[in-house]
Amino acid sequence: MLKKSPLAPAAMPAMPPVRGVRIATKNSGIKYKGRDDILLMAFDAGTAMAGVVTKSKTRSAPVEHCVDALKAGGAARALVVNAGNANAFTGRAGDVAVTRTLEAASAALNCGQMEVYVSSTGVIGQPVPEMAIANCVTSLAGELKESGWEAAAVAIGTTDTFPKYATRSARIGGVDVVLNGIVKGSGMIAPDMATMLGYIATDAAIPQPFLQALLSRAVGRTFNCITVDSDTSTSDTVLLAATGKAGNAAPEGPNDPALRDFKRALEEICAELAHMVVRDGEGATKFVTVRVAGATSEGAAKQVGLAIANSPLVKTAIAGEDANWGRIVMAVGKSGARAERDKLRIWIGGVEITANGMVVEGYDEAPVAAHMKGQEIDIQVDLGLGRGKATVWTCDLTHGYIEINADYRS
Amino acid sequence: MLKKSPLAPAAMPAMPPVRGVRIATKNSGIKYKGRDDILLMAFDAGTAMAGVVTKSKTRSAPVEHCVDALKAGGAARALVVNAGNANAFTGRAGDVAVTRTLEAASAALNCGQMEVYVSSTGVIGQPVPEMAIANCVTSLAGELKESGWEAAAVAIGTTDTFPKYATRSARIGGVDVVLNGIVKGSGMIAPDMATMLGYIATDAAIPQPFLQALLSRAVGRTFNCITVDSDTSTSDTVLLAATGKAGNAAPEGPNDPALRDFKRALEEICAELAHMVVRDGEGATKFVTVRVAGATSEGAAKQVGLAIANSPLVKTAIAGEDANWGRIVMAVGKSGARAERDKLRIWIGGVEITANGMVVEGYDEAPVAAHMKGQEIDIQVDLGLGRGKATVWTCDLTHGYIEINADYRS
Repeated sequence: MLKKSPLAPAAMPAMPPVRGVRIATKNSGIKYKGRDDILLMAFDAGTAMAGVVTKSKTRSAPVEHCVDALKAGGAARALVVNAGNANAFTGRAGDVAVTRTLEAASAALNCGQMEVYVSSTGVIGQPVPEMAIANCVTSLAGELKESGWEAAAVAIGTTDTFPKYATRSARIGGVDVVLNGIVKGSGMIAPDMATMLGYIATDAAIPQPFLQALLSRAVGRTFNCITVDSDTSTSDTVLLAATGKAGNAAPEGPNDPALRDFKRALEEICAELAHMVVRDGEGATKFVTVRVAGATSEGAAKQVGLAIANSPLVKTAIAGEDANWGRIVMAVGKSGARAERDKLRIWIGGVEITANGMVVEGYDEAPVAAHMKGQEIDIQVDLGLGRGKATVWTCDLTHGYIEINADYRS
Repeated sequence: MLKKSPLAPAAMPAMPPVRGVRIATKNSGIKYKGRDDILLMAFDAGTAMAGVVTKSKTRSAPVEHCVDALKAGGAARALVVNAGNANAFTGRAGDVAVTRTLEAASAALNCGQMEVYVSSTGVIGQPVPEMAIANCVTSLAGELKESGWEAAAVAIGTTDTFPKYATRSARIGGVDVVLNGIVKGSGMIAPDMATMLGYIATDAAIPQPFLQALLSRAVGRTFNCITVDSDTSTSDTVLLAATGKAGNAAPEGPNDPALRDFKRALEEICAELAHMVVRDGEGATKFVTVRVAGATSEGAAKQVGLAIANSPLVKTAIAGEDANWGRIVMAVGKSGARAERDKLRIWIGGVEITANGMVVEGYDEAPVAAHMKGQEIDIQVDLGLGRGKATVWTCDLTHGYIEINADYRS
């Protein structure tokens, strides 16, 4: 792996098994040498799968299959992920490679092809050998075991500078359940190499339609609230598998009060994984939290937050440790959401900077400048118009980003 | 001025006078020393003004006044532009400074306040002394002359590395007319310092509503098709004054065939000025033309073109001279416009790269790699869906951009 990001977590958790989930990894020989780059995850019969995928109009063949499988009911017995080749923009050949992988997993695990989920991440536009992934699946099926979440996180990585995984526990109606998750990517830092892929598994028993509702809500507030450089991959995918092995009573709907603690845990694990992606943003030296309140709706708040978090001017100011609040005013203005100059309030590091359409009287930049020198930057905006609020996370835009992306040869 | 951009035009045109337009510039003492930083342009009675301004929701007091003056009918006798202080996000004090400037121009030129147009560019959020601009207007009114377009271009500049001006001639119903234009800015490279302001004047006689229609159309295909870093200023303004001194017969409407040559000249001068802004993009080393065809509409084509031109990944690949067409596929996919993988065709430097959802057979990267080493990069995309087309211009994203924007202290 590359040099570890300065924003990487200081410690990583020990990962318990998830009942009903087995794991195997190996080297596929497709691109990388000396490291595992393919993951097979097998689920016991009765597992439900929910998923959220990229909105890109040029999404890859594996993503198209996941969408079909989810539409077919979201039953799940297997997940296959390879790193090094995205099998994206590979035309008919890409579709064939996916079919061969589905056939192999279906035969090895004795399940339907629509119970198999696939993801590929890596270089775009290079045909993947038709049987390369399929052959690995056949051999991995004999090596499945309950442990190995950390190895799974390593196997799906590409330009990641550290493996990303998290775990949570929750209670549903008096029954303990566990949630494990792995993720790879550092934003859509390069369509070639750094799609975001996230996989979460739980032993909770939750019917598929409810599981989908819970995942969509959690992703909307976590994975879809992070941005590294505003670019969107052809392959971004987040999947959530529920094996049901914990034996909790089935909830009556996504709003069943029995699910309250599970929802908390799901949003927490999604947030932790999403934040790790930002913390591995290419060239990132600062982790930035943008909190927006007072918007006309939650959607408008997110729009303002993303406009700030995606602004190259805001991100370069943060890299330069410059308390340049004028750039935040600019970003709010261009977001497209309703805003009024004289109601807009801005805080950096908890210090109020603007009110009544101008800088506050006696504004002292010293504590703000000190805050900008830290690794964790906090920007807060109140539009003063309504009750809509949202939080968005990003990193700064540095020379490191240019180096990695300008100097990388396809 | 800063070190001249490597993309600056090799030669600049000689600027003829425009009948009915007089110019004066001086140093205001507000920010800069040793250079003129305030411009007064006076128009003879009977001049019509059209304008297009920023869509920002936090736009400055001067922009708000221009919008009001255009709404009031668009008669014009004066234009006042100062560089160094944007008078943006300055609350009530900013409104008062604008009022004082209008009063001064109205008294000096014996005209109505709604016939005076004002622009300010520079630092955001610093109150401008109430009378600073007004006092300059009073003294400049005694120094107006017909020449001085080059000096006017210099006076409105901030971080510009070269003054930007252009001229064209056209015929309307057998009568020769001239169009002169000046512009400043290098995209919204910093709300503090680099708003885009453009001013064009012609001696043609064109009624205000028709003039507005012509300008809106030309700006939509030129100034609104350039991007440096996707950020939008609180002050962006383009104004077009028509003095009527050429004495051509008034056209019957914006689609009058007599205006065909004038439209060509207007779009050309707008394009030339807009391209100069891109050529002065901070840190720019390559000028990039993105041509999109085959979209479902002109709007959809522009959407795809801007998604490509704004993508940090595409722009860093160009900086790195990397023929990374996968990033173009990604940008098309995320644009939001309709696209189909298998219909998408991509050319770089005139060489076809993709067709049928994959790279073309026998694709040879050598000529494309050679093209990427040049200063003028040509990207062409055909979506294969309809007849909509658009052209967008941008520059590459380099270490220079980060340096200028991260290391600049507010």
